[in-house]
Amino acid sequence: MARTCLAVVLAAGDATRMKSSKSKVLHTVGNRPLIAHVTHAAAAAGVAKVALVVGRDADKVTQAASLGLELPVAAVEQTERKGTGHAVLMARDIIAEGFDDVVVLYGDAPLIDPASLTAATAERARGADVVVLGFRPADPTGYGRLIEQDGELVAIREHRDATEAERAIGFCNGGIITFSGREAVSLLEAIGNDNAKGEYYLTDIVEIARARGLRCVAIEAPEEDMMGCNTRAELAGIEAVWQARARHAAMLSGVTMIDPSSVFLSHDTVLGTDVVIEPNVWFGPGVRVGAGAVIHAFSHLEGADVGPGAEIGPFARLRPGAELAEKSKVGNFCEVKKAKVGPGAKVNHLTYIGDAVIGARANIGAGTITCNYDGQNKHLTEIGEGAFIGSNSSLVAPVRIGDGAFVGSGSVITADVPDDALAIGRARQETKPGRAGRLREKLAALKALKAASRG
Amino acid sequence: MARTCLAVVLAAGDATRMKSSKSKVLHTVGNRPLIAHVTHAAAAAGVAKVALVVGRDADKVTQAASLGLELPVAAVEQTERKGTGHAVLMARDIIAEGFDDVVVLYGDAPLIDPASLTAATAERARGADVVVLGFRPADPTGYGRLIEQDGELVAIREHRDATEAERAIGFCNGGIITFSGREAVSLLEAIGNDNAKGEYYLTDIVEIARARGLRCVAIEAPEEDMMGCNTRAELAGIEAVWQARARHAAMLSGVTMIDPSSVFLSHDTVLGTDVVIEPNVWFGPGVRVGAGAVIHAFSHLEGADVGPGAEIGPFARLRPGAELAEKSKVGNFCEVKKAKVGPGAKVNHLTYIGDAVIGARANIGAGTITCNYDGQNKHLTEIGEGAFIGSNSSLVAPVRIGDGAFVGSGSVITADVPDDALAIGRARQETKPGRAGRLREKLAALKALKAASRG
Amino acid sequence: MARTCLAVVLAAGDATRMKSSKSKVLHTVGNRPLIAHVTHAAAAAGVAKVALVVGRDADKVTQAASLGLELPVAAVEQTERKGTGHAVLMARDIIAEGFDDVVVLYGDAPLIDPASLTAATAERARGADVVVLGFRPADPTGYGRLIEQDGELVAIREHRDATEAERAIGFCNGGIITFSGREAVSLLEAIGNDNAKGEYYLTDIVEIARARGLRCVAIEAPEEDMMGCNTRAELAGIEAVWQARARHAAMLSGVTMIDPSSVFLSHDTVLGTDVVIEPNVWFGPGVRVGAGAVIHAFSHLEGADVGPGAEIGPFARLRPGAELAEKSKVGNFCEVKKAKVGPGAKVNHLTYIGDAVIGARANIGAGTITCNYDGQNKHLTEIGEGAFIGSNSSLVAPVRIGDGAFVGSGSVITADVPDDALAIGRARQETKPGRAGRLREKLAALKALKAASRG
Repeated sequence: MARTCLAVVLAAGDATRMKSSKSKVLHTVGNRPLIAHVTHAAAAAGVAKVALVVGRDADKVTQAASLGLELPVAAVEQTERKGTGHAVLMARDIIAEGFDDVVVLYGDAPLIDPASLTAATAERARGADVVVLGFRPADPTGYGRLIEQDGELVAIREHRDATEAERAIGFCNGGIITFSGREAVSLLEAIGNDNAKGEYYLTDIVEIARARGLRCVAIEAPEEDMMGCNTRAELAGIEAVWQARARHAAMLSGVTMIDPSSVFLSHDTVLGTDVVIEPNVWFGPGVRVGAGAVIHAFSHLEGADVGPGAEIGPFARLRPGAELAEKSKVGNFCEVKKAKVGPGAKVNHLTYIGDAVIGARANIGAGTITCNYDGQNKHLTEIGEGAFIGSNSSLVAPVRIGDGAFVGSGSVITADVPDDALAIGRARQETKPGRAGRLREKLAALKALKAASRG
Repeated sequence: MARTCLAVVLAAGDATRMKSSKSKVLHTVGNRPLIAHVTHAAAAAGVAKVALVVGRDADKVTQAASLGLELPVAAVEQTERKGTGHAVLMARDIIAEGFDDVVVLYGDAPLIDPASLTAATAERARGADVVVLGFRPADPTGYGRLIEQDGELVAIREHRDATEAERAIGFCNGGIITFSGREAVSLLEAIGNDNAKGEYYLTDIVEIARARGLRCVAIEAPEEDMMGCNTRAELAGIEAVWQARARHAAMLSGVTMIDPSSVFLSHDTVLGTDVVIEPNVWFGPGVRVGAGAVIHAFSHLEGADVGPGAEIGPFARLRPGAELAEKSKVGNFCEVKKAKVGPGAKVNHLTYIGDAVIGARANIGAGTITCNYDGQNKHLTEIGEGAFIGSNSSLVAPVRIGDGAFVGSGSVITADVPDDALAIGRARQETKPGRAGRLREKLAALKALKAASRG
Repeated sequence: MARTCLAVVLAAGDATRMKSSKSKVLHTVGNRPLIAHVTHAAAAAGVAKVALVVGRDADKVTQAASLGLELPVAAVEQTERKGTGHAVLMARDIIAEGFDDVVVLYGDAPLIDPASLTAATAERARGADVVVLGFRPADPTGYGRLIEQDGELVAIREHRDATEAERAIGFCNGGIITFSGREAVSLLEAIGNDNAKGEYYLTDIVEIARARGLRCVAIEAPEEDMMGCNTRAELAGIEAVWQARARHAAMLSGVTMIDPSSVFLSHDTVLGTDVVIEPNVWFGPGVRVGAGAVIHAFSHLEGADVGPGAEIGPFARLRPGAELAEKSKVGNFCEVKKAKVGPGAKVNHLTYIGDAVIGARANIGAGTITCNYDGQNKHLTEIGEGAFIGSNSSLVAPVRIGDGAFVGSGSVITADVPDDALAIGRARQETKPGRAGRLREKLAALKALKAASRG
C-alpha cells in the first residue's frame, strides 16, 4: 500500500525587503506564482494533501496555490509570527487527520525538485523518523550545520552556536524536513521557545526526536532546490535558474535555441521537435508550438497555438486565442488576437488581426487592419480561402470577405464581399501639376512665421 | 570645519586601441560620458572643485565633464604626454589655490565609488599624507604591488621591478592617490623621469613622501572601482558592471525584473515601487516610471514620463516628451512622441502619436496615424476625453477631435470634429461580383509574360 | 616549395540526442552550417583539398561543406559505422592521390582555429610523423590522456584503460590528428578492431607509428577549439563561444556594443569603424554596415547594405536587398525589402517599403505602405528626390512619385505623380454633429443584447 504524505506549506511569512504591495509568494517565476510551483512539486512527489499556512493576502495565496492543482488544499491562517515550529503547528488539525509522512515546504522556495521529496519519503519508508534535506553551499557561513554521527543526524546547529569544528562542516540545513505523521503533533508540541528571539524553531525537532530514541537522517539535495526569495534580486536569481532548467530540457527534447539565455519560457510552454527559436523570444502562459515551426527573433507569444511548420516573426505578437494553422506565417509588426489563421495563410507586415477567421492560403497585405471594435462591442471578420486583401486596407467588422475575393489596396471595406468578387473602396486620386512647389513655399512661410513669433 | 578637496581628473590620454573618432572619455556608460561619471563621483564624495586635464577633444570633454554638475570645473590642457606625474602638474596653478586634499582620478575609470574617495580623505584627516587606493585582483601579474610595512605604505613597485617575494603580494596599485594639498606641488615637482620610458610617474610620490618623513598608507577598494577603458571590449565590460549595479539597486528598491541582464538603465532612470519590467527593455536618458506600472518586453523608452499603473508594450516606443498619465496604455508597435496621453486612455496597436494631447479614457484604434508633419512644420492633434478614433484613421494636424467624438474607421480627418460629433471620411465601397477571377487571370498572364521576357 | 595537405573531414556520424530531422553538421552557428565552418577553417589553414566522409543527408552535407569554398571537395560515403579509423579509410583513394600531410577534422567541431592546424603542419615540417592536438580541460575525467616521454607522444590512453598515474595527466586528446601523407594509408590499414566495441580507433595510429620507429608529438590547442556537438544544448554552447569571439573581434576593430552578449552576428557580417550597436540586434547573413552608422536596439538586419552614418531602428527590419545610402534613416516598425533608400532619405515610422527606389532626402510619412504585390507579381515604386509622402498613404505599384512631389496624407496613389506635382487621393470628410451620442447608445444596446443572449 502506498504511503500517504501531507505537505505543510509555509506561506504566511513575508519579506519587507521585497518592498511589495502583495505577498511575496504571489510573485511569479515562469509566469506562475511561487506558491503554485511549490504545491505542484508536492503533487508531483505524490503528496496526498496540502496544508497551506497563510497570512498576508490569504485568499489570493490560497487561490494561487490551488491553480491547476488536483490535490485538496486546506488553508489555515497564522496570525502571529512565532517561528517555523509555531507556523507548522497551525496545521495541527490537518496533521491529526493521519498521514504516514509530513513534509514541511516553503512557499518562497519554488525550485524544490519532487525527486528530493520522494527521496526523503523513501528514507522514511526505510525507517527514519525525521529526514532533513541538506545541501553543500560554496560558502556555508551563516547556515545551520548538519551534525552527523554514524550515519545519523544528531543536531542542526545554528552558525552562531557552532564550534570551530562544527563550522568546518560544509553540509547545511535546507529547511525542508519530512517526519513521521504519527509522531508529528507530539514532536511539534515539544518545541520550545527558550532562545534569544523567543521563537519556536522547527529545526529543534531533530534533538527532540533523538531524545525520544527516534532516528534522524540528512540527505543531500542540490543547492538550487533550496533557493528562497527575500528580495526581488533573489526572485530574479530564482527565475534565472528556473529558465535555465526549462531551456535545457527543451533543447534536449529537440528544440534549437540560438541563444537560450534570451528565450523566456512559461511553466506550461509546449514546444515540438525541430522547432527553431531565434534570440529574444517571450513565451507567456498557454503557448503550444508544433514541430518544425520557426519563431524568429523579437517575438512575443501568449495563449497562442502555432501549427507545425508555421513561421512567426521577427517582431510578431501573438495574443490569447491566436490559432495558427500549419505552414501559416505571421510576420513583422503584426498582432494576432483571438483569430484563426488558416493553413498557408500569410499575415506578413504591419497588420492587426483581431477577432477573425482567415481561410487557407489567404494573403493579407501590409498594413491591413481588422476594425473589430466599435468602442463597445467586438465584431468578427471572416476572410475566405485564397482571398487577397490589398495593402493598407481596413476591414470594418462584422464583415465577410468571400473565398477567392480580391480587395483593392487602401480600401475601407464595410460590406460583405461575395466569393470571387472584387471590392474597392478608395477615393479617386487628384493630381495637381506644379502645386507642390507653391505648397512648399506656403509651408516654409508658415515655418518662418512660427519661428518669428517664438523669437 | 569641513576639509576641502580638489579632484584632478586626467582626461587627456587617449587609446589608439579604441579606434575611435572621438576621445575615449566621451564614450558612454549608462548613457552618460565616462568623464561625467568620474566628475559626478567626485561631487558625490564632497569634492570642492575639479581640475580637468584635457587633450583630444578638449572642449567636448570639458563640456561633458560639467554635464549636470554643480561643481566648478577648470580645464587645463596637456599638450605633451610625459606620464601621469607630468599630467597632474598641468593643474599646478589650481592646486596652488590651496586645498586640504588633492585626489587624482582617471577620466576613463567611471566606476569609482564615492565611498572609496571619502575613505581616503578620512585617512588624510587621521594624519596620512598620501593615501593610495589598492585592490586585490584574482591575478596580480602586471600590476604595481603595494609594499607595506607596519601599517604604512613604503613603495609602489612595478611588476617588472618586483622581487619574487614582492610579486607574491596580492595588493595592487589602483592608481587613485589622495595627498596633502599643502605638500602637493612640492611632491609633484620632485618626481623625476629617470626611467626606461623617460616619463614622470605619479606613483613615485610615495617614495618621495617617505623620504621627507611623511606618512603614506594604502586602503583597499573593490577591483571594479578601478576598471579602466582602453578598448571597446573593456568599455562593454565597464557598462556591464555599471548596469549590474544599477539593476540590483532598482530591484532592492522594489522593482521586479524578470531578466535583469536584459534591462538597460540610464544614469538618470527613475523607477517607482512595484514597477514590473519584463525582459528586453531599454531606458534611454530621462525616463521616469510611476509605481505599479508594467513595462512589457521589447519596449524602448527615452525622455518619457510614465504614470502610475500605466502599461507599456510589448514593442512600444516612447520618445522624448511622451507623458503618459496614470493607467494609460501604449501597446504593440506604437510610437508616442511629444504627446500627452490622458488617464486611462488607450493607444494599443500600430499607432503613431506625435505632437498630440489625448484626453482621458480616449480610445485610439489600431493603425491610427497623427499626420503631424507637413515637410516643414509640426502641428498639434488634440483628441478629447472619451473620444473614439476608429482604426486606420489619419488625423491630419492641426486638428481637434472633440470630447466624446467618434471617428469612423479608415477615415482621413482634416477638419475639427466637435464634441460628440461623428466624423467619417472614407470612400464608398464598390463591389464587382465575379471580377476577382478575371483580375487573377490577367495578373497571371502578366506574370507569365514577365517570366518569358526574363527567360 | 609549399607543403600540400589533405583534410579528411568526418561528417557521416550523427547524434540521436540531437533529435533532429537533419544531419547534425547541417545545423548552423553564426548562420553557417557547422560543416562549412570546418571546411573554411581548413581552407584558411592552407589545405589543398577536402575529403568529406558523409552519411546521412550526404548531398546536402556536401553542398553545405562547399558553400563559398574555393577548395575542391570530394565526398565519399561511409555506409557502416565502424569507428573513426574506419571512417578515415573511406577516403583511401583520395589520400592515395599523394599529399605531404593528412589532417583529420570533425564536421561537428566548428570552432577549430586554423592556427592550430598550421601549428600541426609546422611540426610535420620539423620532422614529426604524427601530430596530435591536445587540450587541458578543467576536469579531464573521461578523456583520452596524452602520454608523453622525452617530448614525444607515446600513446593516447583511454580514460577507462588509464592507470592512476596516467589519470593524473591533464593533457587530453582533442581528436584532431595530422600525419604523414606518405605513410597515411599504411598506418590507417594497420589499425585493428580488437577491442570491446569491435571498432577501428584512429587514436591507435600513435602506437602503430611508434612501433615503426616514427615520431609522434602532441601540441596544445585551446579547449574551445575541440568543442563538439551531440545535443542542441551543446550546439547553443558552441554558438555562444563563436558569437563571443566574433563580438570581441568587432569591438577591437572599433565597433561599440553596449551589450555585446545581445548582439548576434553572422559569419559574413561586416561592420565599419565607429559603428554603434545598441542591445538586441540581429545580423542575419549578408549584412554590411558603413562607418559611423548607428543600429538602435531591437533591429533585425539580413542581406542589407547600410551606408556610412545611417541610422537604423529601434524596431527596424531590413530584409535582403535593402540598400541604405549614407545618412539615410529607417526608424521604428519599418520594414525595407529589396529597395534603395537614397542619401539622407527618411523612413521613420510604421512603414513598409518593398521593391522600391527612394530618392535622396525624400521623406516618407508614418504608416506609408508600398503596395508592391498584386497576389502574383511584385511591382516597383519609385519616389523622387526630395519628395514628401504624407502619412498613412498607400502607393499602389507600379507607380512613380516625381522629384519634389507632394502626396497628401491618407492618400491612395494609383497613378504616377509628376515632378513637383501635388497628389491627393482621399475621401471628403463628413461631420455629423451630435451623432456620436446616438451611435454610442445604439452600440451599447447591441452590447446589452449580446450579453443577454449569452446569459
